[in-house]
Amino acid sequence: MKISVPATSANLGPGFDTLGLALNIRNHVIIKPARFHSVSLKGEGSNNPKLKDNNMFISTFNDFHHNLSSKKQQFRFEFQNEIPLSRGLGSSSAVIISAIASAYAIEGIKLDNKKLLNLALSYESHPDNITPAVMGGFTVSTIHENEVYFIRKEIPKVLKAVVVIPNRAISTNLSRKTLPFKYSKEDAIFNISHSSLLTAAFMTEDFRMLKKASKDRFHQYYRMKQMPELFAVQKVALRNGALMSTLSGSGSTFFNIVYSKDAPRVVKKLQENFPHFKIFACEFDNTGISIEN
Amino acid sequence: MKISVPATSANLGPGFDTLGLALNIRNHVIIKPARFHSVSLKGEGSNNPKLKDNNMFISTFNDFHHNLSSKKQQFRFEFQNEIPLSRGLGSSSAVIISAIASAYAIEGIKLDNKKLLNLALSYESHPDNITPAVMGGFTVSTIHENEVYFIRKEIPKVLKAVVVIPNRAISTNLSRKTLPFKYSKEDAIFNISHSSLLTAAFMTEDFRMLKKASKDRFHQYYRMKQMPELFAVQKVALRNGALMSTLSGSGSTFFNIVYSKDAPRVVKKLQENFPHFKIFACEFDNTGISIEN
Repeated sequence: MKISVPATSANLGPGFDTLGLALNIRNHVIIKPARFHSVSLKGEGSNNPKLKDNNMFISTFNDFHHNLSSKKQQFRFEFQNEIPLSRGLGSSSAVIISAIASAYAIEGIKLDNKKLLNLALSYESHPDNITPAVMGGFTVSTIHENEVYFIRKEIPKVLKAVVVIPNRAISTNLSRKTLPFKYSKEDAIFNISHSSLLTAAFMTEDFRMLKKASKDRFHQYYRMKQMPELFAVQKVALRNGALMSTLSGSGSTFFNIVYSKDAPRVVKKLQENFPHFKIFACEFDNTGISIEN
Repeated sequence: MKISVPATSANLGPGFDTLGLALNIRNHVIIKPARFHSVSLKGEGSNNPKLKDNNMFISTFNDFHHNLSSKKQQFRFEFQNEIPLSRGLGSSSAVIISAIASAYAIEGIKLDNKKLLNLALSYESHPDNITPAVMGGFTVSTIHENEVYFIRKEIPKVLKAVVVIPNRAISTNLSRKTLPFKYSKEDAIFNISHSSLLTAAFMTEDFRMLKKASKDRFHQYYRMKQMPELFAVQKVALRNGALMSTLSGSGSTFFNIVYSKDAPRVVKKLQENFPHFKIFACEFDNTGISIEN
């Protein structure tokens, strides 16, 4: 069985724990019944031997598989990972989603996308990465009584992502701790209105609106202070034609949307200014999770 | 010259100072050059003789007209008002919008919708009523540097509004004062995600999502406590098939969206339970401001 899941960028500025989209950067796993448990790991994370023994995919897969099957079975897992770890590109959401989905698929048990999302909630309490990882495209999500509710929209080919991956991480936990506990009514309204306008801009493909609508008063400033070069990344991206430029999840990656024709110029300008960061253009993903038996 | 502007319902639950839509309840004004200033007033407000002398429409019209024309001119104003006053249905936004637009129109000076909205901001500091009053339909708005940015969507005929107008007002000022100054991160995220999902539901016409997406933690509870029957209005509306049921602006009107076929039943049930309130179904407005020379 082969399964693959895309990287995701969440928040998109004002849409804290709400907005997300999928990128054509994917983690692939092949799972085969075998006489002995074995693991091969290529790509991102392969230089970390711990990830073979203490692997979140395998432990999550086992949690579900033990409940679904009475047989005691062994598997060979072959990972080919493209999603960088701990950089705000949804690597842990991708692992959770693909582990749960493959435990069901390998037993031939149907699992619809809505149920997959609800199961994933016990591992990741906010839906902004898991929803686009499953559905592809741009998604708006919220939670009611432990269930995910979402609406999805395809992202057209006229747009590309420009991804700026710094050479170090911002810890998600540390990053959450730097945020205020309370927000003024004005700042809260600012994010309510901007996240709503940003949603409308994606839904209507009114991409001229992205730059204003993607402004945020909730989290970016507090997190970017931990890596001040990111303010300069944002400035260079916007000055060179990026339609929007936001922290990806809790960072450290910076995520930009550009018209496809502008991608080479924006990449070049960013590379000139930030030679120590990994910078590239990629397509958006409108497929989400993919499973082949 | 004839001008008319629709009533509007703002906030729509979570979309504080952001979301709004237009109803087919309109204020009409006919303005004619005349030898002497005179005013006739029919419909809503006509039982209040003060509104003839101390009239916000005429004072706003004069503010703009004096700047646009060097001639000293007198006019006859004939008002036919359908929008109830001080009930959260955008009556003051309608007055501001129509007064500014008619001052330009009577001098034959072109005024685009965006400029009209920006001018109106000096009278009303949030854009959630003025934008749908000008544009019709459902609108998402925000403000940057004293300019309104918005995206609009038509509301299809399959939906109707059911409007519940109590027999007394909640003061907008008092109503604003009852709100918290600060919100917890959780409550702010709740409204960010719900307002965004509600926006997506209107944009994609996914109306099954309205009920969950229209939940709010920002203002409705605090305002509805001032008129506790409103909690019962909401319960009766939702139990009888309303797709959503929210306070209109800062109240006291309660605003419900229903499938057109369900409108008679929802109206009847609400009338049975709240015989002292004015309750009726009406269509949405997709036209916005209308000017005939």
